[in-house]
Amino acid sequence: MVEGAFRGVLVPVATPFRDDLSVDADALVGHCRWLLDQGADGLALFGTTSEANSLGLDERLTLLEVVVAAGIPPTRLLPGTGTCALPDSVRLTAHAVGLGCGGVLMLPPFYYKGIADDGLLGYFAELVERVGDARLRLYLYHIPPIAQVGIPLGLLGQLATRYPATLAGIKDSSGDWEHTARLLAEYPQLAIFPGSEAFLLDGLRHGGAGCITATGNVNPAGIRAVYSHWQEPAADGLQAAAGAVRRAVQAHPVIAAVKLLLARIHGDAGWRRVRPPLQPLAAAAGAELLAAVQAAGLELPAA
Amino acid sequence: MVEGAFRGVLVPVATPFRDDLSVDADALVGHCRWLLDQGADGLALFGTTSEANSLGLDERLTLLEVVVAAGIPPTRLLPGTGTCALPDSVRLTAHAVGLGCGGVLMLPPFYYKGIADDGLLGYFAELVERVGDARLRLYLYHIPPIAQVGIPLGLLGQLATRYPATLAGIKDSSGDWEHTARLLAEYPQLAIFPGSEAFLLDGLRHGGAGCITATGNVNPAGIRAVYSHWQEPAADGLQAAAGAVRRAVQAHPVIAAVKLLLARIHGDAGWRRVRPPLQPLAAAAGAELLAAVQAAGLELPAA
Repeated sequence: MVEGAFRGVLVPVATPFRDDLSVDADALVGHCRWLLDQGADGLALFGTTSEANSLGLDERLTLLEVVVAAGIPPTRLLPGTGTCALPDSVRLTAHAVGLGCGGVLMLPPFYYKGIADDGLLGYFAELVERVGDARLRLYLYHIPPIAQVGIPLGLLGQLATRYPATLAGIKDSSGDWEHTARLLAEYPQLAIFPGSEAFLLDGLRHGGAGCITATGNVNPAGIRAVYSHWQEPAADGLQAAAGAVRRAVQAHPVIAAVKLLLARIHGDAGWRRVRPPLQPLAAAAGAELLAAVQAAGLELPAA
Repeated sequence: MVEGAFRGVLVPVATPFRDDLSVDADALVGHCRWLLDQGADGLALFGTTSEANSLGLDERLTLLEVVVAAGIPPTRLLPGTGTCALPDSVRLTAHAVGLGCGGVLMLPPFYYKGIADDGLLGYFAELVERVGDARLRLYLYHIPPIAQVGIPLGLLGQLATRYPATLAGIKDSSGDWEHTARLLAEYPQLAIFPGSEAFLLDGLRHGGAGCITATGNVNPAGIRAVYSHWQEPAADGLQAAAGAVRRAVQAHPVIAAVKLLLARIHGDAGWRRVRPPLQPLAAAAGAELLAAVQAAGLELPAA
């Protein structure tokens, strides 16, 4: 395991927007603080749930600076810095490393499809060489249901051999436990994060590092409890409780659902906004979601 | 039809790279001039074939300025300006309009999948409003095999109604003639471009505007001949001849194949380079390609 690798429950921090669709940086910083107070081990800013792929390049650069300047410890930050294009990925990554981030979570280039493994290897190798900074800690992001381009298992081994001090881990959002289990078995030297708390306890029992999960935005304490107590008799019950909340959220488009819940949690209706092409939840779906997560045990402030 | 809409054979201009993978702007300008000399009606810079999605945001801004400054008429330019993120798409589009480009070719936001039609409508509407320039001529880009997110047929009608002077056309790279035929039948007010010369003659016979095609990079005159003579007895023979060259190219990864042929056409081996994650053709495949396109009738300079 790379020294200082992330462990525990990491949250792809949702991004709040003002009514002109600009980022509400104050609300973002406030949400980061709340997540750390609730026990989140790390903040994966600019993830899929963050609508990072709907943010402009300059917005991503500026926002990261704002979050660090606001006092969020950069060692707790694992920003997403992968784009379709090598130059932009290099720029975002070097910037994050320069700010002292604990690592970066890197999508593969995802526009061109049917890419050969050697092509991806060439891309990541160029990226590491061009960033050229020994402080870089790279976590790859495997999310084939959305990116379509995944991280092939063999590629991990090639990168781990070539960059043993740099390649630190992987987030596996395949949603396929068999795939996660193979990663855990074949790459014990990497920090393996399932992309959902659904596999948190199973992952920990097989050497996993924790999880990085969208629903961590709204149930950080409940999910962190699984991690805190995973070797205790209470673990299965805690896992089941977190799973019930997750299923209630997953019954809806997840990003819009998370943001509707954050509007209640933070008492700020602006949190419901998403950027096009995403759409907020309709009122009826929102009411159903609020009832369902509370029935599943999530405590929410009064409306 | 929007006044001044593009017609004819448009080429998604391949992008040459130096050995450090930076863009060779001089070679790009030279290729643009050659294409216009060969009869190309328009240059769709920053298309899929251009590896535009492997270019950084700043590279795209700078390169377009270089091409225009070099004297390529901006009215002949249809640059791709669609990215995953509204702010970057607005920035590229406003920049292209400001330089006097004849139009922009716009991918839908392609990271998030399973997007509702209304979400795409919201995205394109925000884009048009934020660019806020009456000179904007918008051509949408439907390429579901790669972008995965397509342009729904109904969305075209909504945008045509809302922005009749702005929405000028669509490039249909579905590879599905039935889809192109529906577009032609339902949207006679739009300039419909099949994304391949395979459908050029059929398209023209059903009211199409021409085609926008990768192989236009290497066979512009042969493809333009179909357009020039489509109402003459020679048309079917010319279409068959262009199709034979196309099939020889399509037997390989198209971008790498086009660039290998451009190395021969322009006498510059550097043209073979592609940016990761793409890979150049292997030597044996390249030799096979060169033989096949010549057997299909494409005249190439001696090596």
